Amino acid sequence: MSTFKVRVLYDFRGEANTAEMSVYEGEVLTVTRTDVGEGWWEGLNPKGQSGLFPEAYVEKIESGPPNIPAPTPPAQPAWSAQVTDQGGHDDDWDDEWDDDTYSEIPSGPQPNNAHQRNDQGHYGSEHNQNHNVPVSQSNRHSYYGDNISLAGSTAGDNKGTITKKSLNIFSTYVKSGLEGYILGQNKDVTSAISKRIRIYRDSEDSLGRWEPISNPYTVQINSPKKASKMGGLKSFIAYQLTPSFTNIEVSRRYKHFDWLHARLTEKFNLIAIPPLPDKQVSGRYEEMFIEHRRAQLQEFINYMCRHPVLSTCDVWIHFLTCTDEKQWKQGKRNAEKDQLTGASFCLSIDAPDKEIMPSVVEAKIDENFKYIDKMDQCIKNLMSTALDQQKKCENMYRREFHRMGEMFFALGSAFEYIQQGMYSKASVDVKNIGVSYMAIAKLYEDQGKIDWQPLYDKLYIYRGITSNLPDVLNMQKMAEQKKRECERNVQIQQMALTDVRKRSDVVTYTVFAELNHFQQERDHDLKRALKDFLQEQLNFYRNIVGKLEETLSQFE
Amino acid sequence: MSTFKVRVLYDFRGEANTAEMSVYEGEVLTVTRTDVGEGWWEGLNPKGQSGLFPEAYVEKIESGPPNIPAPTPPAQPAWSAQVTDQGGHDDDWDDEWDDDTYSEIPSGPQPNNAHQRNDQGHYGSEHNQNHNVPVSQSNRHSYYGDNISLAGSTAGDNKGTITKKSLNIFSTYVKSGLEGYILGQNKDVTSAISKRIRIYRDSEDSLGRWEPISNPYTVQINSPKKASKMGGLKSFIAYQLTPSFTNIEVSRRYKHFDWLHARLTEKFNLIAIPPLPDKQVSGRYEEMFIEHRRAQLQEFINYMCRHPVLSTCDVWIHFLTCTDEKQWKQGKRNAEKDQLTGASFCLSIDAPDKEIMPSVVEAKIDENFKYIDKMDQCIKNLMSTALDQQKKCENMYRREFHRMGEMFFALGSAFEYIQQGMYSKASVDVKNIGVSYMAIAKLYEDQGKIDWQPLYDKLYIYRGITSNLPDVLNMQKMAEQKKRECERNVQIQQMALTDVRKRSDVVTYTVFAELNHFQQERDHDLKRALKDFLQEQLNFYRNIVGKLEETLSQFE
Repeated sequence: MSTFKVRVLYDFRGEANTAEMSVYEGEVLTVTRTDVGEGWWEGLNPKGQSGLFPEAYVEKIESGPPNIPAPTPPAQPAWSAQVTDQGGHDDDWDDEWDDDTYSEIPSGPQPNNAHQRNDQGHYGSEHNQNHNVPVSQSNRHSYYGDNISLAGSTAGDNKGTITKKSLNIFSTYVKSGLEGYILGQNKDVTSAISKRIRIYRDSEDSLGRWEPISNPYTVQINSPKKASKMGGLKSFIAYQLTPSFTNIEVSRRYKHFDWLHARLTEKFNLIAIPPLPDKQVSGRYEEMFIEHRRAQLQEFINYMCRHPVLSTCDVWIHFLTCTDEKQWKQGKRNAEKDQLTGASFCLSIDAPDKEIMPSVVEAKIDENFKYIDKMDQCIKNLMSTALDQQKKCENMYRREFHRMGEMFFALGSAFEYIQQGMYSKASVDVKNIGVSYMAIAKLYEDQGKIDWQPLYDKLYIYRGITSNLPDVLNMQKMAEQKKRECERNVQIQQMALTDVRKRSDVVTYTVFAELNHFQQERDHDLKRALKDFLQEQLNFYRNIVGKLEETLSQFE
Repeated sequence: MSTFKVRVLYDFRGEANTAEMSVYEGEVLTVTRTDVGEGWWEGLNPKGQSGLFPEAYVEKIESGPPNIPAPTPPAQPAWSAQVTDQGGHDDDWDDEWDDDTYSEIPSGPQPNNAHQRNDQGHYGSEHNQNHNVPVSQSNRHSYYGDNISLAGSTAGDNKGTITKKSLNIFSTYVKSGLEGYILGQNKDVTSAISKRIRIYRDSEDSLGRWEPISNPYTVQINSPKKASKMGGLKSFIAYQLTPSFTNIEVSRRYKHFDWLHARLTEKFNLIAIPPLPDKQVSGRYEEMFIEHRRAQLQEFINYMCRHPVLSTCDVWIHFLTCTDEKQWKQGKRNAEKDQLTGASFCLSIDAPDKEIMPSVVEAKIDENFKYIDKMDQCIKNLMSTALDQQKKCENMYRREFHRMGEMFFALGSAFEYIQQGMYSKASVDVKNIGVSYMAIAKLYEDQGKIDWQPLYDKLYIYRGITSNLPDVLNMQKMAEQKKRECERNVQIQQMALTDVRKRSDVVTYTVFAELNHFQQERDHDLKRALKDFLQEQLNFYRNIVGKLEETLSQFE
């Protein structure tokens, strides 16, 4: 057969000592064999290595003139350009990413390019050290297989000799304005504080926890509607969000979520922001896909609603409640000009007044680094299992059971053969076995979406969190470092030093409150998801038992 | 990697349009890749074609001096020689096939070569047309994938232009003495008839059925004992058989079964003899294997016990009851000298006195040819599915579930990490999911032997029957043909012709009685086996449900 090219959609880790090959999102592979069977293809990776990979993890690159660059404004990121180039197709999901605005809510001061929002420099000139580097893109990439140490490494400072990870830490540090905060240089933004956030310390051992949510609420995201504008020339998916505290439906598109996510990531360096579902690089308009995206966004929303700080922050409330176009624009502008971003956010925190022993903290932070790394690895592995099982349910297991069904059914039909059309109970009984197994095959086909996919979606959120938490932990490390620097500096007065220590402790309390929140989420939300998964597996096997019982009861 | 050779143990039919390759028992393959994964290997077949095949279907050919022929007496078949060469190994199953006799029952007049029994020519000289060609070997070959039309083609007459199938028919015909019987030339053996067999005709439509068994009985074959003789130098497996009508245990080895099978096949050309389990070409002494062989022999015995003719025939009763060495020898000699073999067996049959309309019969026989062929195909396919599923339970499914279990368990362990050895209910709960899936993996590992393997063993018996029935049907066709020949022969008197017609009808009645028995077996015994299979599958999935329920109930 002739070879063809495919693009890898998801990372896949090949099993060691087998013919499997690890492939990574975005790689272009040359397919050399499609008849391997069991859903495997053989191909060459960009390094020229040959191996097997799951067919479902790649998409065919349509032949045609390769890579003709679209005529786009130079400021636009390349991937955005690719997408707008495809605009106007009715069934193109990528339309989400086009340059049009949802009629209810225009996309703000730069309606023609939603992705330039980070380049406006609202803060850069006004606030010391508050570098406004776009971070939203780094948070949008896949969590399938990337290493934590590479997450979010998009800093512009290019110091050749330092590793990506340390570059990233440095970048986060600079962006966060942590130094300025520790030195007390950004007090002028205190006027922007609209609401204070309290951290409690329950015992010597537990270093901090967020004040619980006083008015818990939920937000329901409903089956999206396909909307269109410009007389039907452009279509897009609008999700309907209904917060329980207003009971008023608002309509939001994926790009609004994306804008929100960028604001949250910019604002909170000490809080792990749950990830949005990956941008679908390509893919057609499919009901099942859209429903899945809805479920994924619901997971994002649920995490937001449960977080004591995130659930009450202005931009989120604005996102959940605004239905008026003018107010939306104003709220959008306010959010983009928010001064309480990065470490400045600490100014709004009321932490316990008790000084923290640095020695205790250091050990705890190091423990948590290891713990988060372990969690991250385990979640990643379970995600890969979940994805694998989902595919297997839909393909291999379904096929296996269908084949069994066919064999039994054929035997039952052979029973009938000699009867020349006359009724034969034995034939019917044996054919029923076949029917039963084909029904079980159907159960398998549907099952992956019922148990493994929701588990995957939940794990995806936690993988986002465990990817971000090391950065949060690093903030504490850097605050501590800055404090020690000040302590060694003889020019700093004792009183100022006390303030530095206090501010450093606020950072520590905040980090531990966030770690505490993660633990709580893990023990309740993640555990409940695992329980739900188990329940669905149980239901599934009960269904199989039901099918077999029914068939058996019909036997004479 | 360096290539190596393997021998195919079982036929495997590769799926079309995949990389799978069909391989056939006995073929030698060159393995080119063992790291394909999922239990597949890649290799070249003797034609030089490359493809994937299941690792479990082949055995490695040990390297060493290739094919040094063992010094054996020239009359011994080659495969027998290979085996005796290995004699004396305590754990060698092939010891079954050595030249030694079980102490209780010597193997008869030729103790040094049990396999020469067919070459004695007891009948050849005494009875017209009763060629004593060894047939037992042809019945011993695998039913895994061989085509019906090739079964039993061992005739010595080598007519180059006719196909194997027609050669086989001709050979069966000659061996059977059918012509002699139709022409009434073998009446001299009527004195040997000890017991008459009645065939009933219930209606115009049903052409015949055997008189039902008047005293039904069962025979229990018990867990074999490993015995030894010659002061422990030789060891073998002896099975304990207990017929319900005597309740006296007799001890029999596989080679006694083999001898019995040869007698039955020789004696009954109009009755399909159930197959014995395949001779194990190679394989070590393994408890599981021996227990399986016991179960297979039990299937053979059960079929024998349920057959109205076979269950009462002398050699079988002798096999089931004889405990005395002298009597055994005498019975053995009697059986080997039996004069009522082949078509002569019809002399002992009391068929309905009603003449059969040849036109009705011909259509029915043709229908049955197609029906048996269809049944044969379907049984073969289901056998291949059963074997495949059994292997998958033991390997792939087990591995899949174990891997899932590991992933959950690892996550649960990560939960625990931060607790520094302190008890965490969430950790225990999540680890329990892992434990549960690992337990399910164990269920899968054991399951194949509980449901698929017994189903396979049952199908194996029926596949033997559907392989033999075309020969039985052909006997009717040939009897009919001989009758017509006589009708065209003006020299034959009217009265003699009436007798020819009657005898031809006896053959027809016998064939239909046998077909009727097959139908009954199919509708009761085979159907019950399918029901048992279904019940075991149900139990299996109930066990999974039980495991999941238990885990879920422990969740907080």
